[in-house]
Amino acid sequence: MRKIGIKEIEDIALGAALLGSGGGGDPYVGKLVAMGAIQECGPVTLLDPQEVPDDALIVPIAMMGAPTVLIEKGTGGKEYQTLYDTVSQFFGKPIYAFMPMEAGGVNSMLPIAAAARLQIPMVDVDGMGRAFPELQMVTFTIGGISATPMALTDEKGNNVIFRTITNKWTEELARAVTMACGGAVSVSLYPMSGKQMKDYGVHGIVTRSEKLGAAIRQCRDTREGTPEESFLKHSGGIRLFKGKIVDVLRETNGAFNLGRVILNGIGEYRGRKASVTFQNENLCAEVDGKVIATVPDLICLVDVETFTPVPTDALRYGKRVMAVGLPCFPLWRTKEGLELAGPRYFGIDTDYIPVEERAKEGC
Amino acid sequence: MRKIGIKEIEDIALGAALLGSGGGGDPYVGKLVAMGAIQECGPVTLLDPQEVPDDALIVPIAMMGAPTVLIEKGTGGKEYQTLYDTVSQFFGKPIYAFMPMEAGGVNSMLPIAAAARLQIPMVDVDGMGRAFPELQMVTFTIGGISATPMALTDEKGNNVIFRTITNKWTEELARAVTMACGGAVSVSLYPMSGKQMKDYGVHGIVTRSEKLGAAIRQCRDTREGTPEESFLKHSGGIRLFKGKIVDVLRETNGAFNLGRVILNGIGEYRGRKASVTFQNENLCAEVDGKVIATVPDLICLVDVETFTPVPTDALRYGKRVMAVGLPCFPLWRTKEGLELAGPRYFGIDTDYIPVEERAKEGC
Repeated sequence: MRKIGIKEIEDIALGAALLGSGGGGDPYVGKLVAMGAIQECGPVTLLDPQEVPDDALIVPIAMMGAPTVLIEKGTGGKEYQTLYDTVSQFFGKPIYAFMPMEAGGVNSMLPIAAAARLQIPMVDVDGMGRAFPELQMVTFTIGGISATPMALTDEKGNNVIFRTITNKWTEELARAVTMACGGAVSVSLYPMSGKQMKDYGVHGIVTRSEKLGAAIRQCRDTREGTPEESFLKHSGGIRLFKGKIVDVLRETNGAFNLGRVILNGIGEYRGRKASVTFQNENLCAEVDGKVIATVPDLICLVDVETFTPVPTDALRYGKRVMAVGLPCFPLWRTKEGLELAGPRYFGIDTDYIPVEERAKEGC
Repeated sequence: MRKIGIKEIEDIALGAALLGSGGGGDPYVGKLVAMGAIQECGPVTLLDPQEVPDDALIVPIAMMGAPTVLIEKGTGGKEYQTLYDTVSQFFGKPIYAFMPMEAGGVNSMLPIAAAARLQIPMVDVDGMGRAFPELQMVTFTIGGISATPMALTDEKGNNVIFRTITNKWTEELARAVTMACGGAVSVSLYPMSGKQMKDYGVHGIVTRSEKLGAAIRQCRDTREGTPEESFLKHSGGIRLFKGKIVDVLRETNGAFNLGRVILNGIGEYRGRKASVTFQNENLCAEVDGKVIATVPDLICLVDVETFTPVPTDALRYGKRVMAVGLPCFPLWRTKEGLELAGPRYFGIDTDYIPVEERAKEGC
């Protein structure tokens, strides 16, 4: 158990944006929401999973929709109370703690804001260890846990409760309402017991985000090798490519940011070309036409100088980025994990090969 | 109080299809659903509004979506129990009676099926006195009654509860879920007290449908004038046009059946042309380019021989139809009523003039 205050939030947001793999929203926006709540309501208690009783009611909090929309719509103050009341009333018991659903600039921050405002703790666990675009893509689905009852509320005060036959149906119905509400809403889903959270969650994700954020912040002051070496060492990342953005193809479709970014190699990659496709998050990286990393592994684009993660909606012509691969949480590499969030689910016609193995083959 | 059995259903379905004004679904499908329920569970008690206590919980039951889709998807048996449980649990009291939301071939029938299966009565009241395409278009909206909590369920078992800031938002969100569920779902909405039902509902609508149905069935056996005269007398309808369908333009857009039917005059209308635009229901009738009837008045197309109502999805080249106008329930002619469901709401650029006044002008 420890306290999360303003200082911790800076690093958590930065590190979570890296784990967001291009998605999960702008950490600057997320940070402001969390900091505002903490300034108003005081720091948040972060619990280790083992500190939570097995029968406690644990509820993930997130935003759903295109993160770019959240920047314009904002979040009101009342959403978390509405979500708390809806879920608590449904189960007839108080919510013991909130938790994040995914790592990402925004979705790592909103549960902090919610916990601060409702004065309940947050657990150091999430359901992805990264960000994914669809809500059934969580370790809890692999664990057979239902996404519903799921509560959804918008900043205007509309409120919806879903109970569905599968988590994929939750995604379909909640996505439809998200779009009808203008493209971004606040949700609570996968309400679960402390035991389920411990059995299937990605433990220590908030702490990992914080350490990653601190490493990114400090790697230019390192005395061990170059800043880049320091960044790769502390992030556990595999360098895939370095290049200048020469094109970004985008469409916003079904409340997702879809697209592809094209890179011309720089430095030792001069003369080579890479591309990264994305659906909110980066899905597949190719160099010279050869796949070098795919979901569910993390594909992150970072600024070549500052190592700041560059989310898909901030990709701009001329920006110089390094593409980095990070191994995903082991559960994603199981048959069930790959069915949920492997390359073929996203229409990428390749088998999944772990990023570290693809890297050994060289490319 | 009286009983509704198989015999009554035939006439109610036929009359309600006329009041459906081209929408409200195929009475044949609706009839089968209601008859099946009554054969299995026995006849339904139909209550006069005045027999209902002021504080009783009264809940309309309907399908939402394109009626054409219902024909393919069908309804399972469990939807009404799910809707009952959801609403009853929300209010913490039993539902006293169901009621129809609108008159129409399907939506007049489903509450009968629901009442039979749940063994509770149905009230002889609805919220339109006709059919309308959007769910906020009910007399209860004029009465300031909220459409929510609204429960929605599909035949697969998905279940959604909406609580919204306005009835127009209920329409937006529920429509989005309806489409995501495949285009047709079962809903309960506008849960209300007995007093609210009495104050704002269209009283006696089931009985009116039944009488209309009987009149249509019998008008060819009449001894008072021609069958057409008998039909017009018993329906209170104003003859607007008679013609052969020469074109039907359709699109299915946002879960609605949209389109326009073109008629070439026959008999005394020979040489003249008419058109009727529709969005599930018929919205506006023109003869030789001049508007002769608009929503909220009822525009009905009936077979010239049998006077059977022809729903918009059964319009076919070559069919000979009579267009008939029926005055709407008086509340629709108020300022609030016309804002909700007048011609301008549907993008028809004309002021509302009651159909009987337009008829006096001659056309």
